[in-house]
Parts: sequence; C-alpha cells; structure tokens
Amino acid sequence: MSFNLATILQESRRENPDKPLCHINDLEFSYAQVDEISGRVASALRGLGLEPGDRVAVQLPNLPQFLFTYFGILKAGLVMVPLNPLLKAPETAYHLTDSGARVLVTFEMFAEEAVRAVELAETGESVRTYVVNLPGNDERPEGTLHYDELYFAEDFGEPEPTGSDDTAVLLYTSGTTGRPKGAELTHFQMYMNCTVGGDLFGFRDDDIGLAVLPLFHIFGLSSVLNVAVRNGGTVVLVPRFETAAALEAMERHRCTILAGVPTMYQEILHSDTGGRDLSTLRVGVSGGASMPGEVMRAFEEKFPGMVILEGYGLSETCAGATFNINAEQRRVGSIGKPLWGVSVRVVDPDDQPLPPGPDQVGEIVVRGHNVMKGYWNRPEATAEAFRGGWFHTGDLGYTDEEGYLFVVDRKKDLVIRGGYNVYPREVEEVLYEHPEVTAAAVIGRPDARLGEEVVACVSLGPGAKATEEDLIAFCKERLAAYKYPREVRLLSELPVGPTGKILKKELRPLATGESGGAT
Amino acid sequence: MSFNLATILQESRRENPDKPLCHINDLEFSYAQVDEISGRVASALRGLGLEPGDRVAVQLPNLPQFLFTYFGILKAGLVMVPLNPLLKAPETAYHLTDSGARVLVTFEMFAEEAVRAVELAETGESVRTYVVNLPGNDERPEGTLHYDELYFAEDFGEPEPTGSDDTAVLLYTSGTTGRPKGAELTHFQMYMNCTVGGDLFGFRDDDIGLAVLPLFHIFGLSSVLNVAVRNGGTVVLVPRFETAAALEAMERHRCTILAGVPTMYQEILHSDTGGRDLSTLRVGVSGGASMPGEVMRAFEEKFPGMVILEGYGLSETCAGATFNINAEQRRVGSIGKPLWGVSVRVVDPDDQPLPPGPDQVGEIVVRGHNVMKGYWNRPEATAEAFRGGWFHTGDLGYTDEEGYLFVVDRKKDLVIRGGYNVYPREVEEVLYEHPEVTAAAVIGRPDARLGEEVVACVSLGPGAKATEEDLIAFCKERLAAYKYPREVRLLSELPVGPTGKILKKELRPLATGESGGAT
Repeated sequence: MSFNLATILQESRRENPDKPLCHINDLEFSYAQVDEISGRVASALRGLGLEPGDRVAVQLPNLPQFLFTYFGILKAGLVMVPLNPLLKAPETAYHLTDSGARVLVTFEMFAEEAVRAVELAETGESVRTYVVNLPGNDERPEGTLHYDELYFAEDFGEPEPTGSDDTAVLLYTSGTTGRPKGAELTHFQMYMNCTVGGDLFGFRDDDIGLAVLPLFHIFGLSSVLNVAVRNGGTVVLVPRFETAAALEAMERHRCTILAGVPTMYQEILHSDTGGRDLSTLRVGVSGGASMPGEVMRAFEEKFPGMVILEGYGLSETCAGATFNINAEQRRVGSIGKPLWGVSVRVVDPDDQPLPPGPDQVGEIVVRGHNVMKGYWNRPEATAEAFRGGWFHTGDLGYTDEEGYLFVVDRKKDLVIRGGYNVYPREVEEVLYEHPEVTAAAVIGRPDARLGEEVVACVSLGPGAKATEEDLIAFCKERLAAYKYPREVRLLSELPVGPTGKILKKELRPLATGESGGAT
Repeated sequence: MSFNLATILQESRRENPDKPLCHINDLEFSYAQVDEISGRVASALRGLGLEPGDRVAVQLPNLPQFLFTYFGILKAGLVMVPLNPLLKAPETAYHLTDSGARVLVTFEMFAEEAVRAVELAETGESVRTYVVNLPGNDERPEGTLHYDELYFAEDFGEPEPTGSDDTAVLLYTSGTTGRPKGAELTHFQMYMNCTVGGDLFGFRDDDIGLAVLPLFHIFGLSSVLNVAVRNGGTVVLVPRFETAAALEAMERHRCTILAGVPTMYQEILHSDTGGRDLSTLRVGVSGGASMPGEVMRAFEEKFPGMVILEGYGLSETCAGATFNINAEQRRVGSIGKPLWGVSVRVVDPDDQPLPPGPDQVGEIVVRGHNVMKGYWNRPEATAEAFRGGWFHTGDLGYTDEEGYLFVVDRKKDLVIRGGYNVYPREVEEVLYEHPEVTAAAVIGRPDARLGEEVVACVSLGPGAKATEEDLIAFCKERLAAYKYPREVRLLSELPVGPTGKILKKELRPLATGESGGAT
C-alpha cells in the first residue's frame, strides 16, 4: 500500500533510460541522469538527519536543479515546499516558519534575500540554505552552502515507501481569504492528477512540452512536469516567460505541447513569430484564468494544427478539476467537464446543489481524488473549506444541461452594483473583442449610492488610438445598462503574478483612488 | 483526496451507458443498469443502519447479483467480504465472526448452510441474510430475506467519499500459516491494480473477458471484473467452471480474453473443442499457479492468434505483482517482471537481498501500491508478514540477470530430502512432459532416514497405460538422483480448490498413509 510519487520517474527511466527528460538551452538531462542525481540529493538530505515528513523549501526558477531537488525530496519521503523565488525576505520567512522547513534551496540571484529570510524565520532551529549557482559562478553569501554538496552522496535507491496518503507537496496558496496556507497534496493525489490529466490531452511519450509556467505552481508542476515524466516525455525548461525566448525554445526543441495561462497566449498571439517554424505544436493547454473566446479563436488561426484545450483547477485541487478533452467535445467559454474520478457541483449559499442554467450561478465545489488532504496546521480553515464534505473553490459558475461548467468569476471578484451581480469576466470578454485591447480587468469601486461601481482597467496595443470614452461606448453598446463600466482606466500594462495572471488586488487601490494610471 | 473504487463503474457508465457490462447465458446488463441497481443496493444497505466501514459478506457464484452487491457495497462505503459459496457452515461462521459482518448475501443453493452458519456465528448481533433466487424460484429458508428487497431503495447517487486508503475488500486467505486471515485491500490499491494490470495486457473497451474464475477470489475480482469495468469492456459470467460450458460461452459471446489457472488451460487443451469458432480469443492470462511450459506451448498451438501471458500475485498483493507483458518480452517459465510501481526482491532467511541466478533461491518479498494494508485485527501476523518493510509472500524463487522472476515453489511446499532442497514444481514439470499425464502434484512424506521422501500424485488421461513404475522411471531419466519421486500414486483426479488450484494439503494424508488412491 505504499506509494511514492517518485515512482513516475523510476518507471519511465526503467522504460527508456537514455531518453532526454529535460532540455534547457543546449543542455539536456536524460531520465537516468535525473533519476541518479535526484537519488543522490535524497541521500544527502536524509544524511542531514531529516526524517520522512520533514519539509524542504525550494525557491528555484525552472532549472534542472528544480527537478533534482523535487524528485530527491520525494524519494527521501520528505515534503516539498515550492516557493516563488520573487518573494521578499519577510514573505519567505513566513513560509519557512509556517511550514517548519529544515532546509531551503535557493538560486544565486535570490540568495541574499534568502539569507535575510532565514534570519527572520522562527523555525526553532536554523534553516540550512543551499545555493544553486549558474555554471562558472561560485559565489554565495556567507553561511550558505553549495548546492553541489547535495550531489556527493550515494544513490538513495528504492524510494522511501511512503503511504499513498502521505503529503508529498505542501503548496502555499492564499485561497479565498487570509495569509497563505499550505495545501497538503498527497502522493496518491498528485499521481492521479498527472495520470488522469495526461490521458485527457493525450500526452504521448514522444511529446515535448514547453515548461515555461513556473514549476513552483501546481499548473506547471502537475500538468507540465509530472504529466511529462509519468508518460516518459520531455520538457523544455524556460526559467522565465518572455515571448521571444519561449518562441525560440519551442522552435529549437520542436515542442508539441504548450501549457500556459491566457495572458501568455495573448502575448504570443500579439507577437511577431518572425517566420519561426512552430508547426510541431499540436495542443495548447490553458488554465489559471478564463481564456477569452476571441483569444482562443485567433490563436488557433495563427497556429493551424493546434487546438487549445481549457481546464480549470486550483492548488487545492492539484491543478486539474475540469477539462475540455478535445476539439470535438470542447465548448468555447466553458471550462469543460470534471476529470475522471472528480465530482463538481454548483451550490447556493446554503450548499444546496443548483439546477443547470446560466441564471443559476453559485459556488463551485469539488470532491474526488484530486482534492487536497487539508490546509497544513489549519483545522478551522480546512473545516470551513470542506463544509458538507465538498471543497469550496471560491469560484462562481454554472452548468449547462449537458454538464459543461462555466466559471463566471471568482466569488471575491464579484461586483454588486445597485443590487445586481456584475461578473467582471463578462465585461472583460466584451473589452477583449475591441481590436486595440490587449489586457482588461474589471473591478468594483466602493460607491455610496450603488454599493459598488464597475471600473475597467485596460491596456492597449502599440499605436492604439482608442480613448477611455470610446471603450465605455463600446461596452455600452454590448452590455446591459447595469453592467457596462462607468469608468475606464488606460494603463501601460496591468500587474501580473508569476503565472501571468492579472493581479486585481493590485488594481483595486487604483480604482478607488484619485487619478487614472499613466499610459 | 477521497476516492471510491466504484468510480470505475460510474466513469465507464458515463462514457457509454448502454454498453453491456455483463452477459450471462441470454441475459445482459448494461453499464447503466449495473450502476443503477448497485446504487439501489447501496441505499438499501445503508438503510439498514450500516455505516461506512461496516462489513457485508457475499457468498455468491458468478451471477449478476455479485456485481450489484459488490458495487453497492463499495458505493455505500461498506467493506466487501467475498466468501466461497462452497464453504461449510462452521467455516462460513468463522468468517462471519472474524469479520464481524452485519449482512450476508447468499445463493438459494447454499441458503440452508448459510442459515446454519449464521446460527453458529458469534457476531454480537444477528446477521441479516439475503437469498438470491434463480428466476422462477421463490423459496428460501425461514428467517432469511429476499435479495430483491435490496432493489427497492432509491439510487444512492454519488458514492460515499471514502478515503483512498480505506478498506474496500476484506479478502480471506490462509496465507502461509494458520486459520484464514482477512487481507485488507484498499480503494486505492484495487484501483491501481486494475488500471496497471489492464494496461499490461492491453485491455481495450471492445474486449470481452470470460469470467469463469470465481469473482470471490482476487484474480477474478481484480484481473477480470475490475479490469473490464475500468476499461469499459464486457465480461461473460460463467458461474462454475466446466470445460464445455466455458467453450460454449466463449464462442457465443466472442470472447477475446480468457483468464484462468493452469488447470483450466489444461482441461481446455485436452478437451474436444468440436469445431467451435474461438478465433476471437487474443490473450490468455494465467496465474494462481505456475503454468508448465509444455501446456503453454500446446495451448498456443491449438489456438493460434492467442498468446498466454503469465503473472503472479496473491490475495495480499491484490492479484498482480509481476507479469509477462507481451509475447516478445515474455519468458516462458518466468512469472515476468514487477508491475508498474511494484518492487520485488528475493531475500535470504535474514531478509538480505540475493543476487540473480537460479542457484540463488530465496523468499519473494513485495512492496508497492499493490500490497494490502494488513491483516484485519491481526497486528502480529501483519508485523510478521511485513518484517523489514516488505511483504513476505511465502513463495520461493530467484531472478535472472535481466530481472525476470522465477517461482520455484511455495516455501511451505518445499521438500527437503536428505538435506537437499527439492522443488516440487520442477518434478511436476517433468511429469507433465509425459504424454499421458493430465495432472501432477509432488509432495513430501515424512521419512525417518531422509527427513522427507518425494512422492508424486498423478492423474492420467482416458485410456492411459502408464504404470506407477513407468512414471518413476520417466522421472529418473530426467532428474538428479535426489529429486526423482520414489513413489508415484495414481489417482482418478486430484483435489482442486475453487480456482482450480491443486490442493496439496488434501494430498498430504494420502502420501503419509497406507494404500494408493483408486484409479
């Protein structure tokens, strides 16, 4: 009954040891290499006195060392705590303290910040900090250790026989409220997700996926890395999303699968592909936010032979909860149907299931193999999220008669104007139809009379001429009177998070505030 | 993180509701029907006051009601306790008492015995007994209930969100020693086994498997029923193995997969197929005992287009532990290699791994997703079986340089003659080479001088002329002096268990006793 997620690596290695598991620039690592190096890392970590269940924080961009550390942690029966390398020292310190991490692996570029974080952290004992250097560099702050030291141990061999419900990954997420909480994702859950997920979009062992999504997020970790390893495929690591670099990597390594968030698709769409041969691309997986129908259509026109399949999930549901499984069965605008073994419902505020229909909007709740064990050390938050036995996503949506799910918005993003629900996404979809709009985010601004007023933050493409008034008029023609934005703010760009998601939180002060943003 | 094994039924039903899940004679039940009826059974069982985790004993031959009850129990979050219908009342009583079953489902033919068993059982409260009748009959002993009563409840709907490591099936097995113990098989474990197992022999949704192995054993339950349901295929139920009935059913329903124990293959091999068209058969899965190489070769000659793939497993390893995955990679005489995610070792009496080589015989130990949670209420037996973190199978074997496993025998069947190990299977293989031998079992007889003496129990085909002396001479020519049987007993037939396995236990009194068996 033991099961260790690292089995996906070992079995694919057994099948085809010399197959490249990952490319990065001109470097490649085979399955055998990643398996062996991660086995050494596993031994080194256990050699420090860490015991199964102990936490190791990994704050790395998409580098091969991410893979070595991740699989090493799993093999050793330890718990992986992936952290965004861009976190500031007090934020990292919070995560170290909350998780009780004993080791931190960081990258040279962020090492000074990591050292400060370790000083701030309250973990009882000091957190050993290992620094990954780029080739040729050897510098690291005092008190930190070379990552290479983790290479010198003997191969761990057979992975620790963890229980299938033991926690493999502790993934921090802000959820709907409060400070980040660690979602406990188990070996079983992560195995199921990459197995069921890979089947959904037909991942084959000759597929080559672009890993441009950060692997420290669940979408990149499960749907890109784990899916590829489970199926004996290959990933191309791109440490940071830049359109030109992504296009270059896709052409060079003949990528077949692209996984990204809508803003990435949007940027690629509006970029000059400069005659690059991207004809190997066959599937685009989109998630993390709703993809505007316009973008999907335009993207498939620009890259014929490619189909965009949209899915939906959260950290707590181990990436996948629903998916549009193929071009024939997909429904544009829908997030698809539940994954194999996953149940999804739309419920009213009393947790009663709602019937199908676009006017039956409620909270999306999920149950199944994909749902986390709970929030680490947060029994109340766990109980609250799981009330009635279903995990509450905080997303609002509805189903149609055939069971397709539609997300209308995040519950917390809902704007209530004069008693009417305005779903920002609906307004954003209209804005995206405007030929000059490249990004749009609709938020609510407190209003004495109406409760909230609808405000749109928009950025335009180069050379665009539309004014704020033009865009208001554009929306007014296409939306009911209570929905269209009374105010549009043109910004040079919208703030985005590490996955490329637009950060509405950061737009709110603008919307409540005085002047419009600079264009 | 919840996962209920009944998901395999619900998802395949969602995919193709009208597809036949099972045939029996002229009757068929679709996926939708089995899903709905089992949902009613689930509600009815819970309606009796049973709570998740409570045990329900099912003592049925391969009838559709087996499927309804099995999936009903799973959906309700209860624990299935499959029992052999041929057990005598005191044996059934032991199982009811040990498992603490609250409900017993039996078949009309065995209902009187079941009533006696319930009287003998010490379960604290009375065991409700439901009787399955054949169509047209309505009789049942006083105090028992109609099975049909379980049909009248409302559909249970979504299965109980059991934890993936909750026990789904409590499967009694004698293991290596003592009275039968209940192996706790979890939802996760059984799911993994039918998924990994089905992939191994390439089960497709258009496959039709012959379910002639009893479903109350793990081989039939996991490798036949669960594999078919997981993959949206079909099973043909045959309540009792008789060669003619099996052949008839295979032709009528155009079976593609046959799963059986070696004695079944042997009987089919020696039978007159009378011009039946069995050309749809493509894979034969063999397990439960080692298949003599002679039988495999002869069977494939008789049924061209068919390949026999041999596997190995026990109740405690949820059927599959190793398998020969295809004709190209199989090794005749070997039980193959470990399943995906399963680790197998051969260890010496101190639990140290042995190197490869036919002279490096040790006990086969197993670890992985397929291994049971433990023996129900038997902490010592569980600890003993899992010493060193590996499940001890009680089977002796070795590996070759390429990792193929060979079983030489059950540890308890080993004969030690004058200090030399004699593996009965090796001697049996030689006996099967004799053209007149249809069944052979070699056992040890206590001997004052040598410790044990080698005795062979043999049955011959119709019209055979070989004498006991002929067979001794035949073996003497082919085996080392310390191995060949000094005594051969000709029997009209050898005693077999419900799966067709030869019961050496029952032969032992003969071997120690006075006269030879009647021919």
